[in-house]
Amino acid sequence: MTSSRISSISRRAVLSGLAALPVLPTPFPSATALAQAADALPSWNDGAAKQAIIAFVRATTDRASPGFVAPEARIATFDQDGTLWVEHPMYTQVVYCLERVPAVVAQKPELKGVEPFKTVLSGNREAIAKLPLKQLEEILAAALTGMTVDEFRTEVKQWMETARHPRWDRPFTELTYQPMQEALRYLRAHDYKTYIVTGGGQDFVRTYSQQVYGIPPEHVIGTAGGVHYGYAKDGTPILTKEPKLLLNDNNAGKPEGIHLMIGRRPYAAFGNSTGDREMLEYTQAGEGPRLAMLVLHDDERREYAYGPARGLPETRVGTFTQGLYDEARGKGWTVISMKDDWREVFATSVGRAIK
Amino acid sequence: MTSSRISSISRRAVLSGLAALPVLPTPFPSATALAQAADALPSWNDGAAKQAIIAFVRATTDRASPGFVAPEARIATFDQDGTLWVEHPMYTQVVYCLERVPAVVAQKPELKGVEPFKTVLSGNREAIAKLPLKQLEEILAAALTGMTVDEFRTEVKQWMETARHPRWDRPFTELTYQPMQEALRYLRAHDYKTYIVTGGGQDFVRTYSQQVYGIPPEHVIGTAGGVHYGYAKDGTPILTKEPKLLLNDNNAGKPEGIHLMIGRRPYAAFGNSTGDREMLEYTQAGEGPRLAMLVLHDDERREYAYGPARGLPETRVGTFTQGLYDEARGKGWTVISMKDDWREVFATSVGRAIK
Repeated sequence: MTSSRISSISRRAVLSGLAALPVLPTPFPSATALAQAADALPSWNDGAAKQAIIAFVRATTDRASPGFVAPEARIATFDQDGTLWVEHPMYTQVVYCLERVPAVVAQKPELKGVEPFKTVLSGNREAIAKLPLKQLEEILAAALTGMTVDEFRTEVKQWMETARHPRWDRPFTELTYQPMQEALRYLRAHDYKTYIVTGGGQDFVRTYSQQVYGIPPEHVIGTAGGVHYGYAKDGTPILTKEPKLLLNDNNAGKPEGIHLMIGRRPYAAFGNSTGDREMLEYTQAGEGPRLAMLVLHDDERREYAYGPARGLPETRVGTFTQGLYDEARGKGWTVISMKDDWREVFATSVGRAIK
Repeated sequence: MTSSRISSISRRAVLSGLAALPVLPTPFPSATALAQAADALPSWNDGAAKQAIIAFVRATTDRASPGFVAPEARIATFDQDGTLWVEHPMYTQVVYCLERVPAVVAQKPELKGVEPFKTVLSGNREAIAKLPLKQLEEILAAALTGMTVDEFRTEVKQWMETARHPRWDRPFTELTYQPMQEALRYLRAHDYKTYIVTGGGQDFVRTYSQQVYGIPPEHVIGTAGGVHYGYAKDGTPILTKEPKLLLNDNNAGKPEGIHLMIGRRPYAAFGNSTGDREMLEYTQAGEGPRLAMLVLHDDERREYAYGPARGLPETRVGTFTQGLYDEARGKGWTVISMKDDWREVFATSVGRAIK
């Protein structure tokens, strides 16, 4: 699990993330007017992106439409990091793994003086940022495997309750995008089953998906490691997380994982990077109306700006490349401009409003 | 996928199955009186098994019960072969693979004179029965991999429409157990999500699970091979079935697969062999009321009798061993006697009544 995960995260992402801490607090615009109750997508500005969603739902759920889709076949898939919540300056799961190191060392004191744990324990951000990829993988393996699935769930849940995003000083779980929360609910209200299809760890995201997105664990597909069925000393059956990769849920792994876990082709897919490219392509290749959308992070003031639309270097986190942008335009995938298409960025429904 | 699948099938099963063809037609008892509409389990005789199901559902769905389970957590898992439908004299999927050989050879004529395809094409049942395990694996690999997932779905669906069980000369899809169909519906009516957790091929069972059991493909967990995302000559994205085992969904693989695909522990589990033992054990080990049931095939007249309760040799198909029987009794798992607990054996709701 870990070797793939970390390679997908990209070393640059980790480094730039570490270098960016602490981040200066940013003034946030006051909320716009309350949305009309009649509008299911109040945080979306009127425009091509919002209209694409509404037109797709109409085309696939109106019985009179030639593109009508039976309710049981309505599947919509969403990438998580950068699509449903903030991925800057570092993937939440990587923050978790780094912050988990003291607990790992407490359980295995022999690691205290051993790299890379020694460096992470030092708190020296520059040194941590310089850790080679192989050592970062060791940290992820130590934080994500070796324990029972129940222990892991407890550890992640506890961490999520206290961990804070460095820029907004808010729980990560409050930094989901309000427009995407609305899209999830809007699709579910039309009998779409909404799935997360993430390059992040499947077990990690499943710990909070219901609470944060209203998505049950069985609708979370992610990078997945093996588990081993065995017994505790008292004979109780336990499932232990193993450092064995079953599914690398990035790039081609996304449609492959969708086939493994769902067995149907989605009608709608949302992403924000080249890691989502094949999922969108696979979705779009089905018959009838399909929806393929990419979130473009072009709003430095309210969130972040990275990627080609701003003429920035290719990316800091994730990889919304110029090539992907051009492909999206050529294939009729809808690019969502965070700056232009979103009236509000952050969800207030899962926590207090960010002002 | 295949090497594990065939080993779980057991060579004896294949051999005894082939030897048993053709089987003499068996007189079938006329249907009993129509069940009362008020009874959700009309094909179950009153007894410990039926009462166990009813008591479990009450205990977990009555809000006043200390064992109340939130609707979203209600998961019930069912083995398929021998639990939901007939597995005698041979697993349906093995019949499929053998009968698929002519089509495989038509596409790859170079296999015509090569073993084991040559022997299968000869139609010589005795010779087929003597094929070594390794060669049977080759047949399964040829029939189950190498094609796109769409092609495979089409092939299985077409075969299912014409294939017949040798004893009853009925489509396999009509040979599901009426009491288990009622249990599925009864649990779903109480907000349980019903999953198939089968040692059989996941893609195979998914082709008919909705039609036959009312279970959508995404609720089928089975032995699963890898798929490869690639492109047809015209650039269309395709998923190709690979001879690579991702999940051997037998024994410990069942709770491991349940964790991978659902991420929650079931509250109820149904099986009929040692391949289901760990699934039942894992289910039972959770807190609060749990239901663990094993179907005992002890009704030679209406279906088949095999296993320990009849003092027969350990088994012909599957392995409901004396050890499993004793374990079930010791742990409070409920053994369902097909002979005593089932008023009707076969489902009439999915086809014409078998008389």
